[in-house]
Amino acid sequence: MPGDLELVSEWRHFGGWMRQYAHESAAVGGLKMTFNVYLPPQAETGPVPVIYYLAGLTCTGETGAQKGHFAKAAAQRGVAIVYPDTSPRGAGVAGEDDDWDFGTGAGFYVDATQQPWSKHYRMYTYVREELPALVTEHLPIRKGKAGIFGHSMGGHGALTLAMRNTDKYASVSAFAPICNPLEVPWGVKALKGYLGDDRATRAEYDATNLMLEKGPFPSLGTILVDQGKADKFLDQQQLTPHVLQEACEKKGQSMQLRIHEGYDHSYYFVSSFGEEHINFHADALATL
Amino acid sequence: MPGDLELVSEWRHFGGWMRQYAHESAAVGGLKMTFNVYLPPQAETGPVPVIYYLAGLTCTGETGAQKGHFAKAAAQRGVAIVYPDTSPRGAGVAGEDDDWDFGTGAGFYVDATQQPWSKHYRMYTYVREELPALVTEHLPIRKGKAGIFGHSMGGHGALTLAMRNTDKYASVSAFAPICNPLEVPWGVKALKGYLGDDRATRAEYDATNLMLEKGPFPSLGTILVDQGKADKFLDQQQLTPHVLQEACEKKGQSMQLRIHEGYDHSYYFVSSFGEEHINFHADALATL
Repeated sequence: MPGDLELVSEWRHFGGWMRQYAHESAAVGGLKMTFNVYLPPQAETGPVPVIYYLAGLTCTGETGAQKGHFAKAAAQRGVAIVYPDTSPRGAGVAGEDDDWDFGTGAGFYVDATQQPWSKHYRMYTYVREELPALVTEHLPIRKGKAGIFGHSMGGHGALTLAMRNTDKYASVSAFAPICNPLEVPWGVKALKGYLGDDRATRAEYDATNLMLEKGPFPSLGTILVDQGKADKFLDQQQLTPHVLQEACEKKGQSMQLRIHEGYDHSYYFVSSFGEEHINFHADALATL
Repeated sequence: MPGDLELVSEWRHFGGWMRQYAHESAAVGGLKMTFNVYLPPQAETGPVPVIYYLAGLTCTGETGAQKGHFAKAAAQRGVAIVYPDTSPRGAGVAGEDDDWDFGTGAGFYVDATQQPWSKHYRMYTYVREELPALVTEHLPIRKGKAGIFGHSMGGHGALTLAMRNTDKYASVSAFAPICNPLEVPWGVKALKGYLGDDRATRAEYDATNLMLEKGPFPSLGTILVDQGKADKFLDQQQLTPHVLQEACEKKGQSMQLRIHEGYDHSYYFVSSFGEEHINFHADALATL
């Protein structure tokens, strides 16, 4: 049985409700987790489909809720959006607050296997199991397949969760995702830190590797990825969307990679295409 | 001659550009001021009309830019949005950082007459004169009448600037504005602090008083005000939109006051109606 939800705050928003809930999380070792959820007006009359939005490094469950500009389209289409946090908070692991790209705010949506991270840093199970059980139990959110999308580290999370759980996700999209964390600086640091040196363990959290080893994933339909061409992290080879695109082509997976001239890595980029992502998932969820 | 603008950052956004500029401001006593501006795609081929957005207590020029969700409609309608800061920064006035509702982040869009505030706290002249001169000189922004809107303290600023300068503003709207600062706690504290005890001086910055003493203002057309019914500051009698509405009725000024069930004072409220405000101003600016 999922635990209880404590309503922290709620805000009327585009005819529905943005709510913030807290709960004790077994998945992350008993810590208190906080998330946001947007419930569209249609949720007042019955359960609605849901899309999970995974945010990037340093963000929280409020970042996408405030800056993503997703709610208007969600209200029009009658879909809920769940915005999890990006890591456990207050785990008390030595060094967890030292770096902006590892530890607090940087959970990378993995289940850590390495001490001292393995007790609390279990965001993969949190997003995959605990959070869906909670929201479908307590909120007017439809059970069954969901959509999932995210930004940067959260794009990595969305891609890997979807590819590994095609029974749980009907559609996946991402803004400027980390596509090949086995090979890029952010990914090497985080995956080795949480998962250790065994490459096979880390490879389970690498979208490009999953595509090559387990793909294609026809039930996901087309994978949608938006990438700003002026994104400095693209230049720094942290994101490498073309590597994922090549893997998709090799395996016959449909992927739409859109490179946007002039756009960078910020929420000014994300919000510019947010409505299109909501419509993309709403279309997929409408066919279930 | 207006001074120079220093480009701090720029972000591609809805086909146009969100830019952040800094400049030395004569209006606020030589301090460096920072503002955001959204330039729609249409600005690439010529000057576009402009709307000024004045934010509320504790905010900066980035708040509305990130959380207001105004840019999509601005891109569609071909209008620029200028987002000034809410006070001078770093004036070095003793006590300016002590309170969230007075001093830094709380300039109230007045020209202070009282020591030690009068040298730097001159946001009325900054928004009315210096900023328009700068943006029309350096950016593809049309000279002539502008639209102006704002939130809370910024709604107060928008209403009073528009009523006192009908030669400069064609349209005015507000989200949850402070309508009668002469009589409410936030307003009494701020206006007495910046302007002293002389009631006539303070009354020049009170929208309700301006309407009663100088109204109506037919060139402004209809004044649009959105107010959330669940706004705690409405209950605390900080906002009092019905007092302004009565003044408008008494003077024959057209005003549309929309009370929204369930909405509070947050940007989840503002953003829910942001597109309507952009369209409201774009319609007025299109007739000039």
